[in-house]
Amino acid sequence: MTLIVHKYGGTSVADLERIRNVAQRIKHRIDAGERLCVVVSAMAGQTNRLVEWVTSLDPARYDRAEYDQVVASGEQVTIGLLAIALQHLGVPARSFLGWQAGIRTDGAHASARITEIDPTPLRRCIEAGIVPVVAGFQGIGPDGRMTTLGRGGSDTSAVALAAALEADRCDIFTDVDGVYTSDPRIVSKARKLDRITYEEMLEMASVGAKVLQTRSVALAMRHKVRLQVLSSFEDKPGTLVVDEDEIVETQIVSGIAYTRDEAKVSVVRVMDRPGVAAALFGPLAEANINVDMIVQSVSRDGVHTNMTFTVSRADLPRARAVLESVREQVGFERIDADDEIVKISVIGVGMRSHAGIAHRMFRTLADRGINIQAISTSEIKVSVLIAEEYTELALRALHSAYGLDRS
Amino acid sequence: MTLIVHKYGGTSVADLERIRNVAQRIKHRIDAGERLCVVVSAMAGQTNRLVEWVTSLDPARYDRAEYDQVVASGEQVTIGLLAIALQHLGVPARSFLGWQAGIRTDGAHASARITEIDPTPLRRCIEAGIVPVVAGFQGIGPDGRMTTLGRGGSDTSAVALAAALEADRCDIFTDVDGVYTSDPRIVSKARKLDRITYEEMLEMASVGAKVLQTRSVALAMRHKVRLQVLSSFEDKPGTLVVDEDEIVETQIVSGIAYTRDEAKVSVVRVMDRPGVAAALFGPLAEANINVDMIVQSVSRDGVHTNMTFTVSRADLPRARAVLESVREQVGFERIDADDEIVKISVIGVGMRSHAGIAHRMFRTLADRGINIQAISTSEIKVSVLIAEEYTELALRALHSAYGLDRS
Repeated sequence: MTLIVHKYGGTSVADLERIRNVAQRIKHRIDAGERLCVVVSAMAGQTNRLVEWVTSLDPARYDRAEYDQVVASGEQVTIGLLAIALQHLGVPARSFLGWQAGIRTDGAHASARITEIDPTPLRRCIEAGIVPVVAGFQGIGPDGRMTTLGRGGSDTSAVALAAALEADRCDIFTDVDGVYTSDPRIVSKARKLDRITYEEMLEMASVGAKVLQTRSVALAMRHKVRLQVLSSFEDKPGTLVVDEDEIVETQIVSGIAYTRDEAKVSVVRVMDRPGVAAALFGPLAEANINVDMIVQSVSRDGVHTNMTFTVSRADLPRARAVLESVREQVGFERIDADDEIVKISVIGVGMRSHAGIAHRMFRTLADRGINIQAISTSEIKVSVLIAEEYTELALRALHSAYGLDRS
Repeated sequence: MTLIVHKYGGTSVADLERIRNVAQRIKHRIDAGERLCVVVSAMAGQTNRLVEWVTSLDPARYDRAEYDQVVASGEQVTIGLLAIALQHLGVPARSFLGWQAGIRTDGAHASARITEIDPTPLRRCIEAGIVPVVAGFQGIGPDGRMTTLGRGGSDTSAVALAAALEADRCDIFTDVDGVYTSDPRIVSKARKLDRITYEEMLEMASVGAKVLQTRSVALAMRHKVRLQVLSSFEDKPGTLVVDEDEIVETQIVSGIAYTRDEAKVSVVRVMDRPGVAAALFGPLAEANINVDMIVQSVSRDGVHTNMTFTVSRADLPRARAVLESVREQVGFERIDADDEIVKISVIGVGMRSHAGIAHRMFRTLADRGINIQAISTSEIKVSVLIAEEYTELALRALHSAYGLDRS
């Protein structure tokens, strides 16, 4: 018998009416002969409210273990309510907190990682014909204290449980009905994808397609968990995230994604000598600032060069401070920063076997008079940095250029 | 060093400002050299909101285990927030859920009883100079599921922890500043008592003085836990609930309490023969309906009698139904019911050694033209049933008659 893990996010269980709807949907699946394990988030808005309470009591340096204690209460409410709603429909159900479901994590409060899942309690429950309703986003640390997995952690919980239970699929119910070839709010001709590979989904998620957290996709890929992203409001198939060999005819390009979360930093007239990159990027790494898309200009005078790279916008002030602190030591003229930029990425596993993908991208943008400020590539992705004002134009042009437009 | 258990109810932690105040108060005590273990309820209103959600999803027969899962989340929020507020003031603190504090209960969900407390985790915490902040009202059942102790359960948690930790005292902080000789909203001359015995407090609580739950007082008495009831808003001593031998000069009468929670039932013209009481009260007991203040009228015709007793108002409809169901079998004319009655009680351990207490009560009421409908007595209490409209008059008259008025 098929075993599926369902995950319902905060908007799907935002109030009692929606919880009733989720219960109804689960009942249909059970009646159709599926066995289920359900993972839920807190009601939309609850987690934010709890976080606000914590930070207003101690804005600067609140104890992350206590933060977890407070915040984990949100999921506790929804699992109990959904279990009751299911029972009311005649579906045997039982709620499980993270620790009751055997979800053990490391002790990194507020951003814990799942270290182990003992599937025994859930297996026993499922075998008894009872639907387990598990609190996502949470687990228990090595010292017996509550932990949370950080934002989007419920997706990770669902995938990890699907792996531990050897489920046939993990269905992530959300407020969109699948993964699109591009952001449908901008590209009106964007199409919903029936299937996408883990690698592509990973690249999409990392450059702004917010349907799934990168972390949960990586976990699904590692454990070969078949993931489906689908709407919790409409009853129709979504997008299946699977292994490449499950996709019969791969698209060369599957999607065009973008992110406005980055800022460009240029270190101007830095001495062009061995070790300069290490001298700049070492301190940034130590400060836990991720650096992306590095471009080193060809030195004109043979002495100085410019070093350009991107960091996340949130990290920009800290990145500036870190660089200023090593200015003397490294030696450079000034730091320029620009946060009115966007990173646009063309993604597709078909790139591996098809040449000319990057070239078509550069050509298309050049035809529209869009200047490329930096380029980075991976095996299945080409990303460019352009001025933010061209976002919509670039997305639509590339979407057409790669033949992704809906007819 | 003195170890005190503090318990703060829902109104004391109703919002962030009040949580900060509680933290401040705890800091003062710590600075004064006390060691503390703190027990808190959910923020006022939270528990009701959670209960409403549960009952609106399944009004008739919701699963009490899931009810516990949902409702127990309320205290989880306050313990975390209070721990953070304490840490912000520089007081080392750590939150504990019921199960983390070693509070084990039976499996009677929504009205569980504490079966055992393993004081090790809290002791270790206190010895490390950290204030444990424990979730009241909750524990863990034999099957590892969350349980709650029923309304007022946080008082019980506090007393049980004080016993397990062998604390010097258990301070119950609430929205009143102590136990009064009578309800000060009615009897303006009521005085706050400095001390009261467990037995008296038990009788007071059972007849309507709502400061403490009967159950927590009984537990304190059994384990000889010195209890103090005091205000969480003002910094002054409250009322100490202690063993009789701790009270140097006992009052003959300590208080006049009342309850409007009862209803009078009369079974009219029932056959006066052996076994009739059993035939009536057996089925009521089976239906879990408590019967109080039983009066059997003297038979006039030697054949029939009237049986009058009180039940709680909430149970009245069920009591009627149960009695109707045995009418044929027992044989009686009709059932009369009256819920416009009040039970007034004069309470004091001094009664044991002083005669005439009951007589003064009857005399005082008779002087005001108040008719007594039923009487019951215990070793330290005389209760009468009168028409509800005389409540205020009777309370004030009795308060004066026993010399309790504030000068």
